[in-house]
Amino acid sequence: MSQVETVRNGVDIEQLFGTLDAIKAQPEIAKFRFRVANHWIDGAHNRSTIQGFYAAGGEDTTRGEAFEVDAGEPAILLGSDTGPNPAEHLLHALAACLTTSVVYIAAARGVPLTKVESELEGEMDVQGALGLSDEYRNGFERIRASFRVTGDAPAEKLREVVRRAQQRSAVFDMVSHGVPVAVDVTTD
Amino acid sequence: MSQVETVRNGVDIEQLFGTLDAIKAQPEIAKFRFRVANHWIDGAHNRSTIQGFYAAGGEDTTRGEAFEVDAGEPAILLGSDTGPNPAEHLLHALAACLTTSVVYIAAARGVPLTKVESELEGEMDVQGALGLSDEYRNGFERIRASFRVTGDAPAEKLREVVRRAQQRSAVFDMVSHGVPVAVDVTTD
Repeated sequence: MSQVETVRNGVDIEQLFGTLDAIKAQPEIAKFRFRVANHWIDGAHNRSTIQGFYAAGGEDTTRGEAFEVDAGEPAILLGSDTGPNPAEHLLHALAACLTTSVVYIAAARGVPLTKVESELEGEMDVQGALGLSDEYRNGFERIRASFRVTGDAPAEKLREVVRRAQQRSAVFDMVSHGVPVAVDVTTD
Repeated sequence: MSQVETVRNGVDIEQLFGTLDAIKAQPEIAKFRFRVANHWIDGAHNRSTIQGFYAAGGEDTTRGEAFEVDAGEPAILLGSDTGPNPAEHLLHALAACLTTSVVYIAAARGVPLTKVESELEGEMDVQGALGLSDEYRNGFERIRASFRVTGDAPAEKLREVVRRAQQRSAVFDMVSHGVPVAVDVTTD
């Protein structure tokens, strides 16, 4: 494989298969912990700082700077639009994870992609979250995701890559099936 | 109530109770649809554009500009750190929603807050998402959220506000219980 051919879809294929081999040889390096620290600013405005994580047996030291991501609410939900709202951030997490899964799986299977675009929509009745009715849940009733994927492969192969991405995406799994969340509180 | 007292924790209390009354009178305005549009840039780098939403019987027109949120992966997960990764974005969505729920509920109950901070951590074994083992799920096995909340109220009242926030947060509901996600694909 020439130097040029080791990168497909922006993914280093040698590194990809090297990572898989390394984990097969030493499965204990597969444990990851991701984290965010969030602080309230005012009203619906809060900010997460995202930097450190645990991977491959130790704390990551490669991220020189923390990412900051703001959240807010539009005026109709009593905010001043200081960022996407939390439910929109959840849709972004889902879109991003499915997209990266499509890109990595296509890279591993020798499928050069030219486009991956998606539109996601979630429906909710806010009577649930506002505590006005027990007939509605707090979150989205359902989410619809529409993907457009183009590349140098037959349509059926592109569809198969998207199916496989759904089977392997971390956030698709979490949003579809739920995750136990434990909350503790200190007040001083 | 004087003009000064109508805002608590950065939330307009009159507008808050006015919104609840309006929805009680006309429950059909409680239907919301939130959306993101995402496009792949290169490798693990993709970007969501977030602007329009449906609320109170029509399309929102108050957001003059779209928000853009980037995702990426660190080097160990074959990316170039172009943004928080999708699982970190999910933790941000959860932190942001619990925080805003705490702030709004405290405002409604007359509890002035001085601080809401949180740290969230999710654990995963990437053998799941990489397709190397059926023993592990793709997403987090569990999420831990540690909140520090201070304000002008007894500790038990602050704890009660956080409990109520867990019961009402849209993203806490979705991450804890899951949401049906339908994915469709076009390839041209």
